[in-house]
Amino acid sequence: MSKQPLVGIVMGSDNDYGIMVETAKALKELGIAFEMTVTSAHRTPERTGKYVREARERGLKVLVAGAGAAAHLAGVVASETTLPVIAVPIDATSLQGLDALLAMVQMPAGIPVATMAIGKAGARNAGIFAAQILAAGDEEMAGRLSAQRKKMAEGVEAKSRSLQERLAQDGFAD
Amino acid sequence: MSKQPLVGIVMGSDNDYGIMVETAKALKELGIAFEMTVTSAHRTPERTGKYVREARERGLKVLVAGAGAAAHLAGVVASETTLPVIAVPIDATSLQGLDALLAMVQMPAGIPVATMAIGKAGARNAGIFAAQILAAGDEEMAGRLSAQRKKMAEGVEAKSRSLQERLAQDGFAD
Amino acid sequence: MSKQPLVGIVMGSDNDYGIMVETAKALKELGIAFEMTVTSAHRTPERTGKYVREARERGLKVLVAGAGAAAHLAGVVASETTLPVIAVPIDATSLQGLDALLAMVQMPAGIPVATMAIGKAGARNAGIFAAQILAAGDEEMAGRLSAQRKKMAEGVEAKSRSLQERLAQDGFAD
Amino acid sequence: MSKQPLVGIVMGSDNDYGIMVETAKALKELGIAFEMTVTSAHRTPERTGKYVREARERGLKVLVAGAGAAAHLAGVVASETTLPVIAVPIDATSLQGLDALLAMVQMPAGIPVATMAIGKAGARNAGIFAAQILAAGDEEMAGRLSAQRKKMAEGVEAKSRSLQERLAQDGFAD
Amino acid sequence: MSKQPLVGIVMGSDNDYGIMVETAKALKELGIAFEMTVTSAHRTPERTGKYVREARERGLKVLVAGAGAAAHLAGVVASETTLPVIAVPIDATSLQGLDALLAMVQMPAGIPVATMAIGKAGARNAGIFAAQILAAGDEEMAGRLSAQRKKMAEGVEAKSRSLQERLAQDGFAD
Amino acid sequence: MSKQPLVGIVMGSDNDYGIMVETAKALKELGIAFEMTVTSAHRTPERTGKYVREARERGLKVLVAGAGAAAHLAGVVASETTLPVIAVPIDATSLQGLDALLAMVQMPAGIPVATMAIGKAGARNAGIFAAQILAAGDEEMAGRLSAQRKKMAEGVEAKSRSLQERLAQDGFAD
Amino acid sequence: MSKQPLVGIVMGSDNDYGIMVETAKALKELGIAFEMTVTSAHRTPERTGKYVREARERGLKVLVAGAGAAAHLAGVVASETTLPVIAVPIDATSLQGLDALLAMVQMPAGIPVATMAIGKAGARNAGIFAAQILAAGDEEMAGRLSAQRKKMAEGVEAKSRSLQERLAQDGFAD
Amino acid sequence: MSKQPLVGIVMGSDNDYGIMVETAKALKELGIAFEMTVTSAHRTPERTGKYVREARERGLKVLVAGAGAAAHLAGVVASETTLPVIAVPIDATSLQGLDALLAMVQMPAGIPVATMAIGKAGARNAGIFAAQILAAGDEEMAGRLSAQRKKMAEGVEAKSRSLQERLAQDGFAD
Repeated sequence: MSKQPLVGIVMGSDNDYGIMVETAKALKELGIAFEMTVTSAHRTPERTGKYVREARERGLKVLVAGAGAAAHLAGVVASETTLPVIAVPIDATSLQGLDALLAMVQMPAGIPVATMAIGKAGARNAGIFAAQILAAGDEEMAGRLSAQRKKMAEGVEAKSRSLQERLAQDGFAD
Repeated sequence: MSKQPLVGIVMGSDNDYGIMVETAKALKELGIAFEMTVTSAHRTPERTGKYVREARERGLKVLVAGAGAAAHLAGVVASETTLPVIAVPIDATSLQGLDALLAMVQMPAGIPVATMAIGKAGARNAGIFAAQILAAGDEEMAGRLSAQRKKMAEGVEAKSRSLQERLAQDGFAD
Repeated sequence: MSKQPLVGIVMGSDNDYGIMVETAKALKELGIAFEMTVTSAHRTPERTGKYVREARERGLKVLVAGAGAAAHLAGVVASETTLPVIAVPIDATSLQGLDALLAMVQMPAGIPVATMAIGKAGARNAGIFAAQILAAGDEEMAGRLSAQRKKMAEGVEAKSRSLQERLAQDGFAD
Repeated sequence: MSKQPLVGIVMGSDNDYGIMVETAKALKELGIAFEMTVTSAHRTPERTGKYVREARERGLKVLVAGAGAAAHLAGVVASETTLPVIAVPIDATSLQGLDALLAMVQMPAGIPVATMAIGKAGARNAGIFAAQILAAGDEEMAGRLSAQRKKMAEGVEAKSRSLQERLAQDGFAD
Repeated sequence: MSKQPLVGIVMGSDNDYGIMVETAKALKELGIAFEMTVTSAHRTPERTGKYVREARERGLKVLVAGAGAAAHLAGVVASETTLPVIAVPIDATSLQGLDALLAMVQMPAGIPVATMAIGKAGARNAGIFAAQILAAGDEEMAGRLSAQRKKMAEGVEAKSRSLQERLAQDGFAD
Repeated sequence: MSKQPLVGIVMGSDNDYGIMVETAKALKELGIAFEMTVTSAHRTPERTGKYVREARERGLKVLVAGAGAAAHLAGVVASETTLPVIAVPIDATSLQGLDALLAMVQMPAGIPVATMAIGKAGARNAGIFAAQILAAGDEEMAGRLSAQRKKMAEGVEAKSRSLQERLAQDGFAD
Repeated sequence: MSKQPLVGIVMGSDNDYGIMVETAKALKELGIAFEMTVTSAHRTPERTGKYVREARERGLKVLVAGAGAAAHLAGVVASETTLPVIAVPIDATSLQGLDALLAMVQMPAGIPVATMAIGKAGARNAGIFAAQILAAGDEEMAGRLSAQRKKMAEGVEAKSRSLQERLAQDGFAD
Repeated sequence: MSKQPLVGIVMGSDNDYGIMVETAKALKELGIAFEMTVTSAHRTPERTGKYVREARERGLKVLVAGAGAAAHLAGVVASETTLPVIAVPIDATSLQGLDALLAMVQMPAGIPVATMAIGKAGARNAGIFAAQILAAGDEEMAGRLSAQRKKMAEGVEAKSRSLQERLAQDGFAD
């Protein structure tokens, strides 16, 4: 893993770490250096703005923002940079992430935010999508992504084989 | 109406004027000076930040923010000031304002935003609520609000009388 | 904390105390005296009306109403006073607070209610927003709010530093 | 139709007349005298309270309340009487009546409100349901309701016959 | 409590007993005899039809139907009688009762169903509402309902007093 | 097209014809004889029951039920037969078909209903799905379905070619 | 149970087994041979396509697809075959199956998917519906389905009898 | 604009052209060559698969997929490539794009899809986001994006100035 972080992961609260660590894991699997920061669109607007405005010159290529509730973080990040911003809505209120999803995905024309699924699946996909962006100019990365896909497909096949045993155990064998 | 604006109305796009003019009308009826500005959380973050940070010293007492879609404007405004911020969600997408409502009302602990109803009713109420805030230290304003309430009640009674004629016209008189 | 309550917190049921105590905590932190009452829009309409009609002369400046389900309390309170009314929707049914939110925020033109987020975040913000209203004519209160913001920002920075250790523990250090 | 109104129809705004006239029509068809009033839970709380508290002694047996948005009218009416209260949610905002439905139907334990469908179907059913309540002690009314049902059934059969012609016209006859 | 049941409670599954027992309790408190039956709109259509068609002649005055999921029971019951039918939507699927609510409340014009809140609050209110229907021709029942209301109001006041102690315990006394 | 109808299409109201005619068209295209009837779960329960109980012996193999609002028709039909029942939710209220969808699809265990999409797409698919059921024992029908698929695919290709011209007209040709 | 599987059950992940085993149980009860496979629309598109394209010639008559989240599996399966495809939406995300339901049921015109209820009820009904399809050309299967219905009805009656004891135990006997 | 397309825009139906042309416009403004194709996940699975599998070797760097209803297209495209896939949900049914949004954004872990807002705003942002991806390795493109942002900000300021005239015309000048 190169030392220079290419992906900056920001989250609105350290409560979101349990979700956003999935982005970290996905990036680590693919050998992509990243950094992770807590910064809030609402509680630390200055800190957030400063982080984002310096991101490009610090060598970051992609930003990932995870937040719940009225999840403004990704939009606020995107408003300060033309780097690609990936959003992970987090289920942090009684509305189960629907609030965060709509607050992230319904961005107005002009300032795109690439929204992933709510929660852990979305956080993992944010890491993989960041890799797909980096792979545009990096053949080796493209290769790693293809290998990952192949491994996933083999995992599905293995699980299908295990399922047959489970069916037999549960009395469904003829 | 005093010349010095006490209420600053901001909106994310001039498309929102048709809704936000209701706030202006309500303030004018109550004799409260205001100003109105287009500024976007996403397209002009710097302009928005500057406007809000100077608001208090420019004599503004209340800020009203109207926006649609992933309506971050009120939250972004609130993140830069401790003045009371009133939010008006606008029905600007196929999701009929539910996106704007959730993006405004579900603010995290620490940074309140006072959310009104979606659309024109909410915009009018933003103006009245601003007056209620100002009335805390202004007996005359409190009197104007009471007078407005009385007039509303009389309007309901007048409408109820007209309804009787309509019922007769429609053949429901006994 | 002054003895004379400036904020009246009402809730529809004592089951709501666990949420509404967040408003109390926020007010206490900011040194604002308050009182708290159980009164129901539906079970004790008279009691509710009497409380609200006497509020202004008893010296209350802001009312906060917390309720769940078909949460009429804030609207009923607002119908009897021109004091600013802040609403806290509570997740008290299988619909997870969406019913309370819509029953509070969608007030018709003429009678504003300032709606906060569903649950604890909203209850805490109700206290802070009450302080923002009081700060309109109280420089010292404005100062306390600014200090609170600064402390919040420092908290975020501290959490971001702790996060680095957690990342290292979890094996993400390079 | 007896002169003494047995059903009181209240609505929050005269804008709701186009919907609530369906209740009036249904009652007229079934020969039930009614009265219709505009009164708002929020704009005229006193007027609403007075109307409801006098309803029983004025000879009313059932109350029907139609309202849109944060539709508190039915709940407020029900809080002041033990007469049966029927609620008609009206589609009056961008949320298409879902707000009014939830604000009416999700009443807390102790104060029931009988909610009908959103809009015209619900308004018509409010009239029929009022008749069903009155029919508890009125055999003749029960007979009229049975006759109405029979006529409805015949209407369905007639429409099914017409449908065959339409199918033939549209080229679906074999 | 008279022996002759006046209210028939039907439910689609005995799983619904935990909810529908609230209707039974409310009726017992008010001294109204009732009966309770499991019958399904889908699994036992014949049984359901027979029960409902015989209800009036068996002396029942009101029917209460509780069901979850695609809750057709109340509508199917209402289609076979002109007795008043009260519906209790039950939270029995992952959609948390929203499916049952819409399947009950959105009845087409002609066949009313009086829908209560989802779950226990609605079940209790179904019992009270049945009493309100019976009270139309029963002064004593009307008296019992008024007494119940008074007791509820006293309960709220008592809870408000207890709250003051709790506030003191939690350190909010001045 | 054989004279003996194999598919029975029922709808709750003749207002639904504009949607359900899509089922008729799909069946006609595939050479499957059908019949179409108006019958309501609520207004004509007897008629509905009789129609469904006689369906199998009258030679019908599949039933299609279209309805809006609290759409009980498909469930009521399914409760009276073990023939496959296909449901088409219709957008007939302010809730845009969501009520009909949930009232149809959320059937309890034991009585399946095969739900299609809301509106015209669903009505057309009901016809095609009926054909897929019939094709289980009818090789020729299976062939017709394959031919239809091939034609659809060719249609997509043709539209893609036309799109290139439209792009050129709109000035996007390089 | 015949050895030759007539129904192919596919699921997107082995996590779905706990739900989809209900389809297996229902089929076993009705004596229908089936097979069960894990295959993902997204992780193993090739495997999914191959499985579906060979299904008809391998003797399968019906396919059942269970999936959660953006549940594309049923649609992808249906796009590759004209066999009837039954979809079971699974509650696998914070949105409680609403995402899977809409992603399955809202199929465009031309490619039907027969959607069942979310979760276990839907999975069981998928098995019964598959039997109803097979019963089109199989009188004995039709008989088994009728017998199952009769048993279900008897179960409801038995539960209603038990309920009377429970009522007595709970003190509701007169 | 280079001749070699770098972005492939696919849509499920030519009805979606009115929305997806916004992606084309955004790309043209930024000088990025693209191609546009109609291909359906359901009606032409083979065509879709072939297009996507050849995309990388044909020189495409980003794929954009627009679809409505049960919008599987983006997920199906993503399942066949490791190129970044951007999804545009289209409001094409009575559910107003909520179905398409959930069917696109809720992708399972492993296969990311970058979802934009519903409709035109999302389609425009898909074009800009594609440019942001390409700008990772293209300084000149990054410059064009910055210039576009600056122009947007100037547009907001110009609109704010025009608003002052409109306010004066509408009689709000002091």
